Amino acid sequence: MKEDENPSSHFAPTPKPPYYAVIFTSVRSEGDQGYAQMAARMVELAEKQEGLLGVESAREEIGITVSYWRDRESIERWKADAKHRIAQKYGKEKWYAAYRIRIARVEEEKRFEKK
Amino acid sequence: MKEDENPSSHFAPTPKPPYYAVIFTSVRSEGDQGYAQMAARMVELAEKQEGLLGVESAREEIGITVSYWRDRESIERWKADAKHRIAQKYGKEKWYAAYRIRIARVEEEKRFEKK
Repeated sequence: MKEDENPSSHFAPTPKPPYYAVIFTSVRSEGDQGYAQMAARMVELAEKQEGLLGVESAREEIGITVSYWRDRESIERWKADAKHRIAQKYGKEKWYAAYRIRIARVEEEKRFEKK
Repeated sequence: MKEDENPSSHFAPTPKPPYYAVIFTSVRSEGDQGYAQMAARMVELAEKQEGLLGVESAREEIGITVSYWRDRESIERWKADAKHRIAQKYGKEKWYAAYRIRIARVEEEKRFEKK
C-alpha cells in the first residue's frame, strides 16, 4: 500500500446489509487469449449496471472476484446482459480451467480502520 | 496451474446450498511482523473447527479470504475461539491497515469444469 492512500478506498463501498454478493472463484487456462482486455471491459460494463455496489478482486493460484449488488434482480439482469453473455461463452471456451459462482445474501458487515 | 493438477482441487468442496460464507477482505500494514506464520497457523486451526467446509484465498492489492461454513453457529464458535481471538487482537494492532468482514448466506452455487 502506498502511504498517501486511504486503505479503505480498496473496498467496495457497500451499504448496511442486507445486500447480495456474487463470489466468483476461478482457475485460469494457459495463456492470455484476450482475457485481460475482456476482464477490464467487463468490470467497466458491470460498473454501469443498475444495482452494482462495488467489486473486490485478487488473483494468486486462484482468482477471487466478489461483486456486491443491491438485490438478486440486479444480478439476474447482469447475468442476462448481451455483452456479458458473450464473455461468459469465451470464459468457458478459452479462459477458465474451472470456476465456481456463489450467490450469497450478506447479513452482516464489520469494518476496521486503523487509527 | 501445473498440468498434472486437477483445477477443481483449488476450490472449497462446498455442499449444495444453503451454507454460509465469511468474506474477509483486507489491506495489510507495512512489514510482516509475524503475520505469515500466524496466518498459516490460523488456517490450520480453522480447518479443525467443526462446521468449516473450506477456504479460498488470494492477495494482490487487497487480500480476499473466503471461508465457507455449515451454519452461523459454527462461525460464532470460531469467532470466539481463544487462539483466534489473540490473532484478531494482533490483526488490529499490527497486521491490517483496514479490513471488512461480511457474513453471507450462500443461496446458489454454479460450477464449471473444462472437459
